[in-house]
Amino acid sequence: MAFRYPNGKLYEKKVTTSKKTDDGNANRGMTLEDDLNASIHHYLQIGKAVIHKKPTPVQIVSVDYPKRTRAKITEAYFRQASTTDYNGIYKGYHLDFEAKETHQKQSFPLKNIHDHQMEHLNAVTAHGGLAFLILRFAHSKETYVLKAEDFMKLKTETDRKSIKKDDIATLGIFVNPSILPTIDFLPAVEQLFRLNV
Amino acid sequence: MAFRYPNGKLYEKKVTTSKKTDDGNANRGMTLEDDLNASIHHYLQIGKAVIHKKPTPVQIVSVDYPKRTRAKITEAYFRQASTTDYNGIYKGYHLDFEAKETHQKQSFPLKNIHDHQMEHLNAVTAHGGLAFLILRFAHSKETYVLKAEDFMKLKTETDRKSIKKDDIATLGIFVNPSILPTIDFLPAVEQLFRLNV
Repeated sequence: MAFRYPNGKLYEKKVTTSKKTDDGNANRGMTLEDDLNASIHHYLQIGKAVIHKKPTPVQIVSVDYPKRTRAKITEAYFRQASTTDYNGIYKGYHLDFEAKETHQKQSFPLKNIHDHQMEHLNAVTAHGGLAFLILRFAHSKETYVLKAEDFMKLKTETDRKSIKKDDIATLGIFVNPSILPTIDFLPAVEQLFRLNV
Repeated sequence: MAFRYPNGKLYEKKVTTSKKTDDGNANRGMTLEDDLNASIHHYLQIGKAVIHKKPTPVQIVSVDYPKRTRAKITEAYFRQASTTDYNGIYKGYHLDFEAKETHQKQSFPLKNIHDHQMEHLNAVTAHGGLAFLILRFAHSKETYVLKAEDFMKLKTETDRKSIKKDDIATLGIFVNPSILPTIDFLPAVEQLFRLNV
């Protein structure tokens, strides 16, 4: 089941899919979000990192209280998130990131990351956290991890409405394809921020 | 506007209140959550810490798309949160905490903190984060910051369904009353985890 946000973006029924997701082969062909949710769930289970996706922010207007059953929200609206979708802790480091997928082949549209999300990521960087983006090119199934500050640099330097995949590949780290977890981004994050140096 | 969760807990219309909240005197007599939201907003504005409350998790069942207006959620239900309500970053440290208020005068009911929230806080501690509770006694307006591991210790040691305020005061740190922000808990967190030693 899926429906659309006011901005036209597809809304997948995250709750149930992420809960029912079984790590591994079953994930083939799933969205970036499904893959990521399964991956952070795997990290949590093996005790590697504690990362969670934030719930979709909803403005609740009215609620019904049917007898003997749970409260039913009868009117609510999607709100724009004030931060990124994901954060957590890994080896003592605060992680904060946004994940986006594009169907373009050679470039990543800048509009996919909102200004207030970049402001949030910049604040996280300023306070000593690891702020980054997970960018996936759907056609080639290539996934990259890119520092938020490098995204800002590329954004500032271009006159276009997108940044080149080549530049992302140069400044970011390619996430090696993996089965369990599907998106094994933590080794790429270690390399990106030189955590082992 | 306020309504109740299935568990009977009051649900305040957080979105609008927290957005409209003006730090300072206007907060007198507000709930712990309102006070905390105003406090973390203040910390964010002065660049002291980046802490956010997670959105209330909602399971969306059905959505309407009226012409030319934004999507309207017409059926949804409250879900139990899998983590705590608050997390963020302060001086490079990952913070994760739950905040609860009691109307009891000398003790804090254990049921106010769910087992899965304690599991989450324990995992955060294991990964090097600062995991704690902000506990407020509504009558005396006393607020304490207590390490998650000390809450676990007190919980394990007691046969009762609550832990004593005296024990919380001994192991935790009293949050000094303040006007801006209303709940100035970060100095107490520094002291609790000896960040300056």
